[in-house]
Amino acid sequence: MKFKELLQQKNVRPYVLAARFGLEKESQRVTFDGQLATTDHPEVLGNRSYHPYIQTDFSESQMELITPVANSIHEMMRYLAAIHDVTLRSMNKHEMLWPLSMPPRLPQKDEEIKIAKLDQFEGVLYRRYLAKEYGKRKQMISGIHFNFEYDNELVQQLFSLQTEYTTIEEFKNILYMKVARNYLRYRWLITYLFGASPVSEPGYFTEREERPKEPVRSIRNSSFGYKNNENVKVSYESLQHYIEDIHRMVENGILSEEKEFYSAVRLRGGKQMADLPKTGVRYIELRNLDLNPFAPFGVDEDSLGFVHLFMLYLLWADELEAPNDWVATGEFLNEQVALGHPFAQVKLMAEGDRIFAEMNEMIETLALFGAKKSLDIHHAQLRTPDLTVAGKMWTIIESNSNQDLGIVFGKEYHDMAFERPYQLAGFRNMELSTQLFLFDAIQKGVEVEILDEQEQFLKLKHKNHVEYVKNANMTSKDSYIVPLIMENKTVTKKVLAEAGFTVPTGDEFDKLEYAEQAYVKYAEKAFVIKPKTTNYGLGITIFKEGASLADYTEALALAFKEDSAVLVEEFMPGTEYRFFVLDDQVRAIMLRVPANVVGDGVRSVEALVAEKNLNPLRGTNHRSPLEIIQLGDVERLMLKEQNLLVTSVPEKDQIVYLRENSNVSTGGDSIDVTDTFDESYKQIAIEAVRALGAKICGIDLIVPDKSVQGTKNSRTYGIIEANFNPAMHMHAYPHSGKGRHLTMDVLRMLYPEVFESK
Amino acid sequence: MKFKELLQQKNVRPYVLAARFGLEKESQRVTFDGQLATTDHPEVLGNRSYHPYIQTDFSESQMELITPVANSIHEMMRYLAAIHDVTLRSMNKHEMLWPLSMPPRLPQKDEEIKIAKLDQFEGVLYRRYLAKEYGKRKQMISGIHFNFEYDNELVQQLFSLQTEYTTIEEFKNILYMKVARNYLRYRWLITYLFGASPVSEPGYFTEREERPKEPVRSIRNSSFGYKNNENVKVSYESLQHYIEDIHRMVENGILSEEKEFYSAVRLRGGKQMADLPKTGVRYIELRNLDLNPFAPFGVDEDSLGFVHLFMLYLLWADELEAPNDWVATGEFLNEQVALGHPFAQVKLMAEGDRIFAEMNEMIETLALFGAKKSLDIHHAQLRTPDLTVAGKMWTIIESNSNQDLGIVFGKEYHDMAFERPYQLAGFRNMELSTQLFLFDAIQKGVEVEILDEQEQFLKLKHKNHVEYVKNANMTSKDSYIVPLIMENKTVTKKVLAEAGFTVPTGDEFDKLEYAEQAYVKYAEKAFVIKPKTTNYGLGITIFKEGASLADYTEALALAFKEDSAVLVEEFMPGTEYRFFVLDDQVRAIMLRVPANVVGDGVRSVEALVAEKNLNPLRGTNHRSPLEIIQLGDVERLMLKEQNLLVTSVPEKDQIVYLRENSNVSTGGDSIDVTDTFDESYKQIAIEAVRALGAKICGIDLIVPDKSVQGTKNSRTYGIIEANFNPAMHMHAYPHSGKGRHLTMDVLRMLYPEVFESK
Repeated sequence: MKFKELLQQKNVRPYVLAARFGLEKESQRVTFDGQLATTDHPEVLGNRSYHPYIQTDFSESQMELITPVANSIHEMMRYLAAIHDVTLRSMNKHEMLWPLSMPPRLPQKDEEIKIAKLDQFEGVLYRRYLAKEYGKRKQMISGIHFNFEYDNELVQQLFSLQTEYTTIEEFKNILYMKVARNYLRYRWLITYLFGASPVSEPGYFTEREERPKEPVRSIRNSSFGYKNNENVKVSYESLQHYIEDIHRMVENGILSEEKEFYSAVRLRGGKQMADLPKTGVRYIELRNLDLNPFAPFGVDEDSLGFVHLFMLYLLWADELEAPNDWVATGEFLNEQVALGHPFAQVKLMAEGDRIFAEMNEMIETLALFGAKKSLDIHHAQLRTPDLTVAGKMWTIIESNSNQDLGIVFGKEYHDMAFERPYQLAGFRNMELSTQLFLFDAIQKGVEVEILDEQEQFLKLKHKNHVEYVKNANMTSKDSYIVPLIMENKTVTKKVLAEAGFTVPTGDEFDKLEYAEQAYVKYAEKAFVIKPKTTNYGLGITIFKEGASLADYTEALALAFKEDSAVLVEEFMPGTEYRFFVLDDQVRAIMLRVPANVVGDGVRSVEALVAEKNLNPLRGTNHRSPLEIIQLGDVERLMLKEQNLLVTSVPEKDQIVYLRENSNVSTGGDSIDVTDTFDESYKQIAIEAVRALGAKICGIDLIVPDKSVQGTKNSRTYGIIEANFNPAMHMHAYPHSGKGRHLTMDVLRMLYPEVFESK
Repeated sequence: MKFKELLQQKNVRPYVLAARFGLEKESQRVTFDGQLATTDHPEVLGNRSYHPYIQTDFSESQMELITPVANSIHEMMRYLAAIHDVTLRSMNKHEMLWPLSMPPRLPQKDEEIKIAKLDQFEGVLYRRYLAKEYGKRKQMISGIHFNFEYDNELVQQLFSLQTEYTTIEEFKNILYMKVARNYLRYRWLITYLFGASPVSEPGYFTEREERPKEPVRSIRNSSFGYKNNENVKVSYESLQHYIEDIHRMVENGILSEEKEFYSAVRLRGGKQMADLPKTGVRYIELRNLDLNPFAPFGVDEDSLGFVHLFMLYLLWADELEAPNDWVATGEFLNEQVALGHPFAQVKLMAEGDRIFAEMNEMIETLALFGAKKSLDIHHAQLRTPDLTVAGKMWTIIESNSNQDLGIVFGKEYHDMAFERPYQLAGFRNMELSTQLFLFDAIQKGVEVEILDEQEQFLKLKHKNHVEYVKNANMTSKDSYIVPLIMENKTVTKKVLAEAGFTVPTGDEFDKLEYAEQAYVKYAEKAFVIKPKTTNYGLGITIFKEGASLADYTEALALAFKEDSAVLVEEFMPGTEYRFFVLDDQVRAIMLRVPANVVGDGVRSVEALVAEKNLNPLRGTNHRSPLEIIQLGDVERLMLKEQNLLVTSVPEKDQIVYLRENSNVSTGGDSIDVTDTFDESYKQIAIEAVRALGAKICGIDLIVPDKSVQGTKNSRTYGIIEANFNPAMHMHAYPHSGKGRHLTMDVLRMLYPEVFESK
């Protein structure tokens, strides 16, 4: 099978870089001084029996982070970043993740290394067997498993260009066996470039044990790492041989189960290895990447990008020896490289140069011009060992210590996760509510897929239960007509009024002429003129004590500029509060105050604004819970109306407003007042939302005096608006008052079974 | 109580013309030659036991049309028009409504006049009693009952300005009693202006009976009309007297029930008359309007506008005699006027002039300048009797016959209802689907209220079951997330693909640069470039045999002009069909063909288009099932590409397309092909809609060859799009093929109980 030729065919070319990726990353939980954590796996992470993203590996302290399968490395890394963020923020506040493959200093007594407390006794039994067979300390090594799948279209196109194999499954098996053998043959290069376990902590190797001459490139990838006993031997000649050998060893008791076979690669497909000939190998698992301490998540995109090119090269490159010789040579070379000194020149320079030359030829032939840079960078490292990961590590360890390295980097990555705790790494470009909601789903182990990123469209899945969610608040729980009712102010008012709630009385007009004729009805009242569909307060005029015909007409013209329909409405005096109602409960009540500063008698408005903007909750473009206060034209005009300049110094405790409107999006303050409200108002909000038929609703009530008890059929309140897409992030991280975790309430409403199952 | 002064107060002025209106109109069903219909009440109208709009009065042939309560006469008349349309189109195709108050020529034998076949035996018994007490023929007279209620705000304002009465109920009773007495006193003017029963048909009066000297102004409003026996006497001095008198008569057996008390007015409020003192009179029922044969619906807006002013005048004007004298004078004067010759001058000229003078004074004082015209028109009729309704009728009857009058006008109004059977009178400004849906709701007796006319937002009610509907297809039956899925092409495709359906493969790009990089993937394929959100086909380019890089880039730029996200998608060859799926059934399949004409070898394109546009189904602005074919720039360009001009003469049977796109909105033809499709395709459409979770969906399938059986996991079809707001009117009245009444299916889905109850 001449893959090199097939890959150059016209129909194949568009797909050569198409692939699917997945990753598992292990890490030990440790205290800030580098001691193995003695706490249990965080309870807040839900149930380990099904958690798709966060599991425990061998020990209770050993986290295993699992990304979903993605169509690009970039996409996969976003998930890894997010899962990292969730894991760190879900852990005990005084713990971090150990950034090294080699475990931190371990307790002296083996009993203090606790096996993962799984629900399934089977899993516990297997770990007990491993502890006995290999020793607990070996099992504490961590690393990365990278799952790689050639794109289906690529495989299909290759298959269709040949005649030797008649089924796609057979063809895939041939393909993956070739790649596996080439990987084992050339993997020394991966060990050289990315090996990252140069030294062990005292006590890792027992006194009696043989041990490597540290520092090396990778203890983990050497014979001193985590590997099967000598008598485990597998042929890679064909998939059939491979399966038969493993089967035989399981039957003879050399291995306890198939999965005890440790190799740098594993062929994956059906549920059991025996299924592979029928189902075809679906993907290959690369198991030899050490944790890179210089990458916040243990691995970086550039390295994986190189591995991706390497995988294409392994398909491209011919094998030069008989299969088992080829693999055996590779094993031998890898051991040499793994145990070499991190600063030492590798002895395989000629073969290394050949590999890079062939890779360069490949990318030129296939016109993968974007790949050149990655090849050059990694090729350079072949002659400069101190640029490899192990090299860089040894530079630090030599003048400090391995433990220092682990603690400093571990702490840095821990702090990163708490810098902007309202955001979720990997998904910072999405709306904040969706970031919060993604956090919750990942934490509770509900599978989440992003169907449309720009549109904040998610698919959730737990077992067979699928839900689609948009903007983190639009769900299957509301009926289609309900948001349409709420979107329409006139209809909302009619529905609420018919159900006996107090709403401002008023009229809707679609012609200026008709609106003018109604003047006499409003002339002497407090009233508001507004476009039917409002947009950040544009076109609204409030007349608190009636209006002259001229003012009335002018205000109408202003409103008609914004919309073809205009509402003239009674003005209800009082303070406006946002009641967030979800599933028949008021989950939060918020007061929004226009952008403002409070004087101290010393500093200028400008200085006060600058200080207020230092709050890490303030940001721009709706990616923070609060927005930066601007000092633009609108704000300066507002100051001018108060006879102030940006340089004016307000008196102590003087509140200076910089905006008329109270939107958080224009720098307003959000104040949680949920617990200060009488139950009677909450009941009114709940019943009004029920009358609208909504499950999730932000309903705005004007309350003249909240110290008075609210009653439905009275003027103790008035309902101004019902919002079908209410902001949730401002409740989670308010300017003052208690934060309300509403996205978790949405998740609970959608997946009660996940919350009950613990 | 000086109402005249109260009405002039500042706080009252805005509300003087505010009122609520309702109307009941009786009409006999007759054949086109004026014979009483012998058929039963139309079964298609559903169940009379609750029908809010269409009932039967005394006889099985006597329709009673009932409008809902409205805030303006205009609004009320829209409903009357609509109910009329529904009634006529629901009747036997060879029947019409008799446009006169006096019945058509009646069968000789009383037995042939059939009492309404009501389900409730009580109702039947009461009608049997009436037949015995008054004779069946008298009960066959028809007329209009007009319900009038002064606006609540008006009454409240008046109430708050006086101190004499302490409860609003007491005040309302005083108010309505005054108005009732004034009405009875001055109603001769209404009889004069609007009386419309000048003659009876032979056989209406029996030989032995006393009869008026025909022609008169109004038999119905005279002592020869439908009135109680002489011994029925009621005092109008106060509400208490009024109630006591009626009660006494019922107890003494002079009346069988309260409702047997016939008077020109009735005071209405609580469930029973006895409740009135407590509940207060809510409205007044005016019972003396004859059917006006010159108004298509038996009464016109102008006349009712005058009655409205008259009602305000009755509140304004002082009573000049003691209550019962005042009423008795009115009864006497009315009898004189009713029995006067239609052409005769009325003897009450002075009083008439006084009434108009006072009304003029009133509208001037209250600044109701818009009312002047109506007063002038009706005042002129005081001196010109042949301009009154009775006068105009006698002009025709004299030279033809009463029966001719009834037949000619009845037929004209009947034909009006069938002129554009897809529209609904009164609501022609709404979207066609909503008109069809309103028709269905009125026909089946589901109460319907228009919450927002521009937005096609309806509230439906049957007993306690409320539903809200927008665009006739957005209902509570779909969940919120479903239309959001369908609105998003990328998400729709992902959901369908994951469920195993065939959709075009492709990519979404939000940057031109990324899209350009994908060129190699599409270069050799058949593919389409389109904006993610399409709008009448703008920005779409189809490459049926691959594309050059230049063409590819140009097409991308075109698409990015329309949207910030662009899809590059495999092109699926075949014909596109719209499957309309509702409640797990395919209700219609439609083929849409671009605007076209078929040549006859004689006429020009222009002439052929003109002829095709004669089809009454074609109109403009989406208010017809098909649109007029234009001959604008786009069409001329399309002709030019075929080397044709609008003056060219196509050959016989040559199909000339005038548009590339097949939208019905640009003159395309809609062809129903529901019955030509194999069940397999219907099943695919149903399952795909189920996968999307939708109850109502217009799903577009590309089918290469519909003679081949469709299978889910194959290229026998491809799903292009799923529409959450699918047009329904084009299915109801297609260009060719069978019409599908989809709006009725929506109504059935919402109200199964209404369809089961028959």
